[in-house]
Amino acid sequence: MAALFVALIHYPVVDRNGRIVTSAITSLDLHDIARSSRTYGATAFFVVHPVPDQREFAGRVLEHWRTGYGRQFDSRRQEALDLIRVVTNLDDALVEAERIAGARPLVVYTSARASTGIAYAEMRARLEREDAAPVMLLFGTGFGMAPAMLERADLALAPVLGPGGYNHLSVRAAAGIILDRLRGH
Amino acid sequence: MAALFVALIHYPVVDRNGRIVTSAITSLDLHDIARSSRTYGATAFFVVHPVPDQREFAGRVLEHWRTGYGRQFDSRRQEALDLIRVVTNLDDALVEAERIAGARPLVVYTSARASTGIAYAEMRARLEREDAAPVMLLFGTGFGMAPAMLERADLALAPVLGPGGYNHLSVRAAAGIILDRLRGH
Repeated sequence: MAALFVALIHYPVVDRNGRIVTSAITSLDLHDIARSSRTYGATAFFVVHPVPDQREFAGRVLEHWRTGYGRQFDSRRQEALDLIRVVTNLDDALVEAERIAGARPLVVYTSARASTGIAYAEMRARLEREDAAPVMLLFGTGFGMAPAMLERADLALAPVLGPGGYNHLSVRAAAGIILDRLRGH
Repeated sequence: MAALFVALIHYPVVDRNGRIVTSAITSLDLHDIARSSRTYGATAFFVVHPVPDQREFAGRVLEHWRTGYGRQFDSRRQEALDLIRVVTNLDDALVEAERIAGARPLVVYTSARASTGIAYAEMRARLEREDAAPVMLLFGTGFGMAPAMLERADLALAPVLGPGGYNHLSVRAAAGIILDRLRGH
């Protein structure tokens, strides 16, 4: 199976009015997406933020769970949080992923608003090939990634849909669902 | 399609040591599971808690989003939160669901620790039948529902698994993934 990486993007993302902003790190995003990443066999989960104070905040959250009370409380959570790498931008995530996996990952964009994109079954089959390149899935915070991030991607996944037109999922749920579609048993 | 209901159980659940406890309501559970419920066409999302103060807390969270700032901030979130019914226990949820759907729902237990359970494809096919009874999916908070809740259920779903043995998902992610497996497109 291809190595799978997850990246949570906090900049550039859009707010509800479509303005480009930097979103704040949400502690529960780190926990939930780390646990989903571990469940579906991701190699690392990159938390991508350009602001040093925010990266330090993420570091403190991780430290709490790596040591002392948090570790005693739930060691399985620690196994998940060990996947997290806090980095400044996507390029740094790609360099680190290439170092780990031995090849540069294919960058795959996800969006609830995508009008088109590769089907999940096709992406899943690609990941299952022995010789497949590593893949890095990008997830946007706020109201989704800015259009500039799509230009950084090699591929876009189709939006996740239910039976109706509403698909305003949280990034925590969307990441879990997409990982399940690509790697669930 | 059968009417689908979601219930988030805060009592009886277990803590990390397997002791039976009442868990606190987490605001983000309400948001995330409401958004997933809306996306996958659930008819209502029951937040089940025996403690009046906790039910009032949930009511205040909803009120914030039904009026004023929250509503202006994100009207799509409001559409999701409108699905929430805060109730005292599972019986009250079942009575209300029966009133809405016209028939008593089949109660379906979910657990990461289940050793067996009905397959997702089978449950999905059942939901798609025209004449199928309504279904209520139970999700546990804390470290999962107490064994007593399994005795209340008509069926249990198989655990959600990835490629490895780790499946310690957050309830927010698990609810999204299970709804996607049953109703995703």
